[in-house]
Amino acid sequence: MLDLESLFKLSYGMCIIASKEDGHFNGCIVNTVFQLTPDPPMVAVSVNKQCLTHQFISSSRVFAVSILSEAAPIPFIGKFGFRSGRDINKFEQVKYRLGATGAPIVLDNAVAFLEAELTQNIDVGSHTLFVGRIISCEMLDDTAYPMTYTYYRDVKHGRTPKSAATYIEVKPKPVDGAKENEKV
Amino acid sequence: MLDLESLFKLSYGMCIIASKEDGHFNGCIVNTVFQLTPDPPMVAVSVNKQCLTHQFISSSRVFAVSILSEAAPIPFIGKFGFRSGRDINKFEQVKYRLGATGAPIVLDNAVAFLEAELTQNIDVGSHTLFVGRIISCEMLDDTAYPMTYTYYRDVKHGRTPKSAATYIEVKPKPVDGAKENEKV
Repeated sequence: MLDLESLFKLSYGMCIIASKEDGHFNGCIVNTVFQLTPDPPMVAVSVNKQCLTHQFISSSRVFAVSILSEAAPIPFIGKFGFRSGRDINKFEQVKYRLGATGAPIVLDNAVAFLEAELTQNIDVGSHTLFVGRIISCEMLDDTAYPMTYTYYRDVKHGRTPKSAATYIEVKPKPVDGAKENEKV
Repeated sequence: MLDLESLFKLSYGMCIIASKEDGHFNGCIVNTVFQLTPDPPMVAVSVNKQCLTHQFISSSRVFAVSILSEAAPIPFIGKFGFRSGRDINKFEQVKYRLGATGAPIVLDNAVAFLEAELTQNIDVGSHTLFVGRIISCEMLDDTAYPMTYTYYRDVKHGRTPKSAATYIEVKPKPVDGAKENEKV
């Protein structure tokens, strides 16, 4: 059985991953950032190959991850998650600073951030798994809760673009009286 | 700055990853399971090279992941997370079934599971990042909440072994009256 909706039970956190190229900045929403090893601290993230941020990370070999707060408003997430940096400058009217790697760190609605230098990029089909060594990481607001993907979906009623690593097509629920196995 | 405690703001879920070798089963706790791509559905997980489960996955090239419920008791997590399969048979008195891949799927305290066939193993130092194609996945209890790593730490007061991908040495808090930047 391949009941992909069961994968919603995996837990993730909502982040912005950002990078640079030729003096330009771009970032997108990812929910697949995770620590790989404690010493040295390494991190991995899956990014869709069609994203401009993918191109920027591939060329600059650095990236910054801002861990979003539960309070991050949906329009803010929408700007980074549903718009392309090829059409708009996502960093306009966004508070950020340049990190030690030169990558832009989004500070708005972030509870903490990390910066990494790319050590490996692994082709996994539609996405690349970027592996990096953490160069710096810092708490911005220890009292704020990070936004989990579950919170984003269930409480904020946020949507997921088809380009996301964890995109799952939710099938219609069976009508009343239909048997469970009639679900399409 | 490298304030590793800020990495606690990354969100994870608590899982058991299990595999087989020569008719033996073993599993361990991981909190670094994440979906890499939606189509075909691929998954990645970071496992410490010293774990017996690492050896089993490397040789059988299959693994099963059980996503744990918030209700999973600490002694159950302790058995899989703090004991070695070289010393005890972790599958004794545990409800499980064999999956399509032949990997053992732990059913106790699980809200959902997935099984995968290994496609890549990436050396990241102390750990290996196993990448696999999801062969089957299934909901076991849609009403139960999956246990996040934050819930495990903050509500269940669970500890983390040094072998974990996300192990972070928590530094002592400053004594009353000490300035924040005197934190060691």
